[in-house]
Amino acid sequence: MANKLANSFLCPTEFTLAVLGGKWKAVILCYLNQRPCRYSELRKLMPKVSDKILTERLRDLTSAGLVAHRKGGRKTGEYALTPKARSLSDVLHMLYQWGNDHAADFEVEIGEPLIKTLDGGQR
Amino acid sequence: MANKLANSFLCPTEFTLAVLGGKWKAVILCYLNQRPCRYSELRKLMPKVSDKILTERLRDLTSAGLVAHRKGGRKTGEYALTPKARSLSDVLHMLYQWGNDHAADFEVEIGEPLIKTLDGGQR
Repeated sequence: MANKLANSFLCPTEFTLAVLGGKWKAVILCYLNQRPCRYSELRKLMPKVSDKILTERLRDLTSAGLVAHRKGGRKTGEYALTPKARSLSDVLHMLYQWGNDHAADFEVEIGEPLIKTLDGGQR
Repeated sequence: MANKLANSFLCPTEFTLAVLGGKWKAVILCYLNQRPCRYSELRKLMPKVSDKILTERLRDLTSAGLVAHRKGGRKTGEYALTPKARSLSDVLHMLYQWGNDHAADFEVEIGEPLIKTLDGGQR
């Protein structure tokens, strides 16, 4: 079930959120924005998402030209952002940062899986 | 059908996107980020959204404390961002800006309803 991007939008915000495509795609992009990840790492970072959904979202992002799967020296390859997705870097950083800074205002608790799993990644 | 915010999230990005709550809420917030709007103005800005959905989203945003409906001097009141929502201003601006700057890379056409309808608004 690939979510094909429409080819016309009424408003730039509508388009940006269509590219981010619901929360899971943006969350995947946020992780890959820190550094390339193997499938098993993404799996650990997103325990609430099923294999089926995670695979589909990665396929959507790949077909949109935002994520590439590249063979690594290890057994399994890695997923990484493409140069096209790098333009989203500041947007992704801001989504993460706002969530981090304002959770308390909304009386919400949030974890920080990046700290636990992506050691050595850029923060 | 109010979309109640969960009270715990695994990742700050997941929380931010839950607050923005799918594309229509973020689009409404983007318009109100320019200036307060009457219901009929929002209606014109978002012709693809039904009255039912627009009313529900406005109710969700009001109950989350992000939007307030205030009586104006005119016949109908206006919707405006609350101080709590002002912290989202940069995020909303960036979502709009990225969409505006990168539509061509994705071979997508976007309109700019703010120019047509919100004359005199901050751009």
